[in-house]
Amino acid sequence: MRRLVALLTDFGTDDPYAGQTAAVVAAATDARIISLTHGVPAHHVSLGACIVDASLELLPPGSVLLAVVDPGVGTARRGLIVRRDGRWLVGPDNGLLTPTQGDIECWCVDRPEAWRDSVAPTFHARDIFAPVAARLANYERPDWLGSLVQDPVRVDRPSACIDGPKIRGEVIHVDAFGNLITNIRAELVQTAHMLQAQVGDARIRGLATTYGTGREPVALIGSWNLLEIAVPGGSAAQRLGCRIGDAVTVERADA
Amino acid sequence: MRRLVALLTDFGTDDPYAGQTAAVVAAATDARIISLTHGVPAHHVSLGACIVDASLELLPPGSVLLAVVDPGVGTARRGLIVRRDGRWLVGPDNGLLTPTQGDIECWCVDRPEAWRDSVAPTFHARDIFAPVAARLANYERPDWLGSLVQDPVRVDRPSACIDGPKIRGEVIHVDAFGNLITNIRAELVQTAHMLQAQVGDARIRGLATTYGTGREPVALIGSWNLLEIAVPGGSAAQRLGCRIGDAVTVERADA
Amino acid sequence: MRRLVALLTDFGTDDPYAGQTAAVVAAATDARIISLTHGVPAHHVSLGACIVDASLELLPPGSVLLAVVDPGVGTARRGLIVRRDGRWLVGPDNGLLTPTQGDIECWCVDRPEAWRDSVAPTFHARDIFAPVAARLANYERPDWLGSLVQDPVRVDRPSACIDGPKIRGEVIHVDAFGNLITNIRAELVQTAHMLQAQVGDARIRGLATTYGTGREPVALIGSWNLLEIAVPGGSAAQRLGCRIGDAVTVERADA
Repeated sequence: MRRLVALLTDFGTDDPYAGQTAAVVAAATDARIISLTHGVPAHHVSLGACIVDASLELLPPGSVLLAVVDPGVGTARRGLIVRRDGRWLVGPDNGLLTPTQGDIECWCVDRPEAWRDSVAPTFHARDIFAPVAARLANYERPDWLGSLVQDPVRVDRPSACIDGPKIRGEVIHVDAFGNLITNIRAELVQTAHMLQAQVGDARIRGLATTYGTGREPVALIGSWNLLEIAVPGGSAAQRLGCRIGDAVTVERADA
Repeated sequence: MRRLVALLTDFGTDDPYAGQTAAVVAAATDARIISLTHGVPAHHVSLGACIVDASLELLPPGSVLLAVVDPGVGTARRGLIVRRDGRWLVGPDNGLLTPTQGDIECWCVDRPEAWRDSVAPTFHARDIFAPVAARLANYERPDWLGSLVQDPVRVDRPSACIDGPKIRGEVIHVDAFGNLITNIRAELVQTAHMLQAQVGDARIRGLATTYGTGREPVALIGSWNLLEIAVPGGSAAQRLGCRIGDAVTVERADA
Repeated sequence: MRRLVALLTDFGTDDPYAGQTAAVVAAATDARIISLTHGVPAHHVSLGACIVDASLELLPPGSVLLAVVDPGVGTARRGLIVRRDGRWLVGPDNGLLTPTQGDIECWCVDRPEAWRDSVAPTFHARDIFAPVAARLANYERPDWLGSLVQDPVRVDRPSACIDGPKIRGEVIHVDAFGNLITNIRAELVQTAHMLQAQVGDARIRGLATTYGTGREPVALIGSWNLLEIAVPGGSAAQRLGCRIGDAVTVERADA
């Protein structure tokens, strides 16, 4: 199978930026191109990193993930190639591409001969990262494209804290269905044998496994591998009057 | 030509769900992938079914349409493969994939060995339907992927009714141009030799063939094969102050 | 490499129109398909033409750009094939595809045997332009698809004017980051040795090269090749309370 280049940005799709980036990739490789999303909230690196974490294993091994959420574009921040779980990642060195910890192989993209002839300081996705991603898809070696580095930037994922008998977290994202995505990781909930979740005025007993039944809000582990509050067939955000930043508390049975 | 897998969902594109579904398809087949739309209003199965009806013949024969508008994800509702007009459809068994009547071949997707190793009850598009769609694109036989069923769910398309000298319908969709898409089917209008359409306070004489001329609202048969109210170069929804659910009445010349 | 067909429309992605157009292309050619954007504001031909201008060189030579912003669909306006900079463009003859001046080769698409069997007067993108684009991607010759014409419609790009010691322009687009894109072309600013830009109540000294530093509004030449006003890490539109049509004035050092 031809290799795959997947795109993830905060460019939105109303402007031509995402399409122009894809065009530059397509001009330099016959690899297949898909968009994971261009809807990361503008400049929201840590949420983008959550999506990278949740999506990487879905890409076939050898794929290239061109990921750009890059408030520092054009400044001294480096560009990076990362090798992670058998896939390649290309984008800014701001934590978007890297796991919070663990050894990974990284190269700083510092070979202008691998870029577009002219580089706009405002659009590295198009002028630097897209050509580099295409070259990786064409089986060029990373050490032809950059120099090994040992100190990539790491960014904390949003994460909840344990506070005695409770886990205290918050809503970090409201998806298009109105589901409330929290920063409480699946492992934490599962270890805790969750008794009850509280968000806004709602108290939700136990963990559900699906969105689909009943009419009351449910708490479940969704596809982000995070605790999620949903209302079957409706919008939890609307029903509960909740939004990003609202507190979510979980009572632990193991405390 | 390589086969085509087309995606149609209510996931939107702000979240990574549509892209993650496409990634799973791409990981399992070299088929081409396009998105028909991810903008079906959330959980709106019957409007999704209208789009399936209007789009299926545009796909090359042998294509796979992966269509997911699935408020019942994770519940007892079945997953389905449908063979229709020489194309394959894969998605939930809730009427989205099936015509309102007529014999069709259907299989219930009940072979977990054809799915992703781990299936999240909240994301069958990614974990069940995408791998099954990829297998169909790879020429696997449907009876390897599921068991024949005779009783797929059918869903009524939105439809207008004839009431003496009038056809009474309603606005079922407002498109991005502000065109009002009604539930009055082309055949009904053509048979009726429409005299006049009324929507809100506007009375519109006769059928136009294009959006392009004049300044007054026009009624025409659009690409949905439904009666549509438009304002040349503008938004009918804004001009007429109309929205989904508003009544549309057609006076028949044949009554 | 297989040829590339790029799509640019004002259809949005909430409706199935863009996907249906892509499906018709995919049914007739094995070429790769990408979307440049479907977010051109409805009927905004001159902004669409700016995006065509800025994007064409990014496509590999021999590519086909299927561009449709077409308020006159179904009326007497012609459909066009344009040969420009080694690429093919297909769409309405309303200035979207053509540069403001200079000789270009153009053909009027007047061979119905190259179209879909049935042509809806409201959807030439799907029924005429998509099949013609696919045929060009399949190396069919333009004179099989249409007749040479010498008088394609031209449309003025938005442009600023020089007024003594000042350049007077306006905001023509606000992008998803809140950057204010003006109609003041890069050449004009560079020639003028810009001293200061004024937009709303803000006075901005000198040209920056990146979005990335400081907290004050900056003026720079962005990827549209136009003067752009931005706020590092934020939205210039929100900070300055500006929107499309607002005046932008540049003081010239060369005046």
